Amino acid sequence: MVKYPSGHSPIQKSDRNNKSYKTNYAGRGMSLEEKINQSNQYYLTKEMAVIHKKPTPIQVVQVDYPHRSAVKITEAYYRQASTTDYNGVYKGKYIDFEAKETKNKTSFPLNNLPEHQRNHMSACNRQGGIAFLLISFHSKNEIFLIPYERIESYLQKTSKKSLTYAFIQKNGYLCPTGVFPMLDYLKALDIYLDELEQ
Amino acid sequence: MVKYPSGHSPIQKSDRNNKSYKTNYAGRGMSLEEKINQSNQYYLTKEMAVIHKKPTPIQVVQVDYPHRSAVKITEAYYRQASTTDYNGVYKGKYIDFEAKETKNKTSFPLNNLPEHQRNHMSACNRQGGIAFLLISFHSKNEIFLIPYERIESYLQKTSKKSLTYAFIQKNGYLCPTGVFPMLDYLKALDIYLDELEQ
Repeated sequence: MVKYPSGHSPIQKSDRNNKSYKTNYAGRGMSLEEKINQSNQYYLTKEMAVIHKKPTPIQVVQVDYPHRSAVKITEAYYRQASTTDYNGVYKGKYIDFEAKETKNKTSFPLNNLPEHQRNHMSACNRQGGIAFLLISFHSKNEIFLIPYERIESYLQKTSKKSLTYAFIQKNGYLCPTGVFPMLDYLKALDIYLDELEQ
Repeated sequence: MVKYPSGHSPIQKSDRNNKSYKTNYAGRGMSLEEKINQSNQYYLTKEMAVIHKKPTPIQVVQVDYPHRSAVKITEAYYRQASTTDYNGVYKGKYIDFEAKETKNKTSFPLNNLPEHQRNHMSACNRQGGIAFLLISFHSKNEIFLIPYERIESYLQKTSKKSLTYAFIQKNGYLCPTGVFPMLDYLKALDIYLDELEQ
């Protein structure tokens, strides 16, 4: 089976984007990325925030020019992103986050969070931005927002290779799920921002 | 000749990135994008700001899997970006900008600034971000930072299809150029931010 970077299979339209798709199980079967993208679109339309997913970096090696209008890329490769997947602005603040899914039940393995992403989130915090992870526990149907500063100070004290579920419950904020938006992570962020100001 | 989106020719390494390249004409012959990228790298290293260029969006249509390790993209097309090219965080503020080059001497044609980019910059401003253009007048060897809010209020009063050089001189901030960084646009931004606070 072909492995694509998460959320970047070549066929972008899926049946569940079909307008005839109706269900009471809102968001069921949707990837974390799809839920976040729908929520970002909702936030944008409601003038609540401007947050976008960055395009996947692709190294183009060869192109062809079959028509007058469009360059056809005939050889290219996915590259590793140097930053996180999402950033934008909310309530005047710079927001930067990465979304991760795990099938684990008791912990989030930190090999899912490569060093360049840690360095990037740390640098964003030092510039006064708000960096966090959204971690989805697939089996529990729970998605947490965890401020990166808390992960960072934890990592300075431990040699552990994962964040336990207990740590995430204690230091993270459960994101409400629904229909519009599917994943209301700004609600979770609000609680964190309130705590920061106190 | 094959037309690529600005700055995205398939061969990324050029002679001028070669370490043996030495010159007193710093930045001469470099594209605006290369100057900005070098400056962003400088700002990042100096812990002054975290600002990155977003990857070019590419629509992948077909992939091959010749090796165990890497997906080879065999058919793909450049897509139009829905936002601007650069964003990040500086002094706790969300920064969002687009860089444009023109060979014109007396004006910047506004057809270079499509509506979706205007809407995006306007939305960023409404969320408390700082959106601006960097416009390079190639023939004059001058690069200006122009706050988007000034362009927007100008566009509300006129039906003109360009920004005159006089308008840009009056409303923009000339960016100092040098070696490290090649384009010190944060200096120009500082003056604008100071004026905003007064």
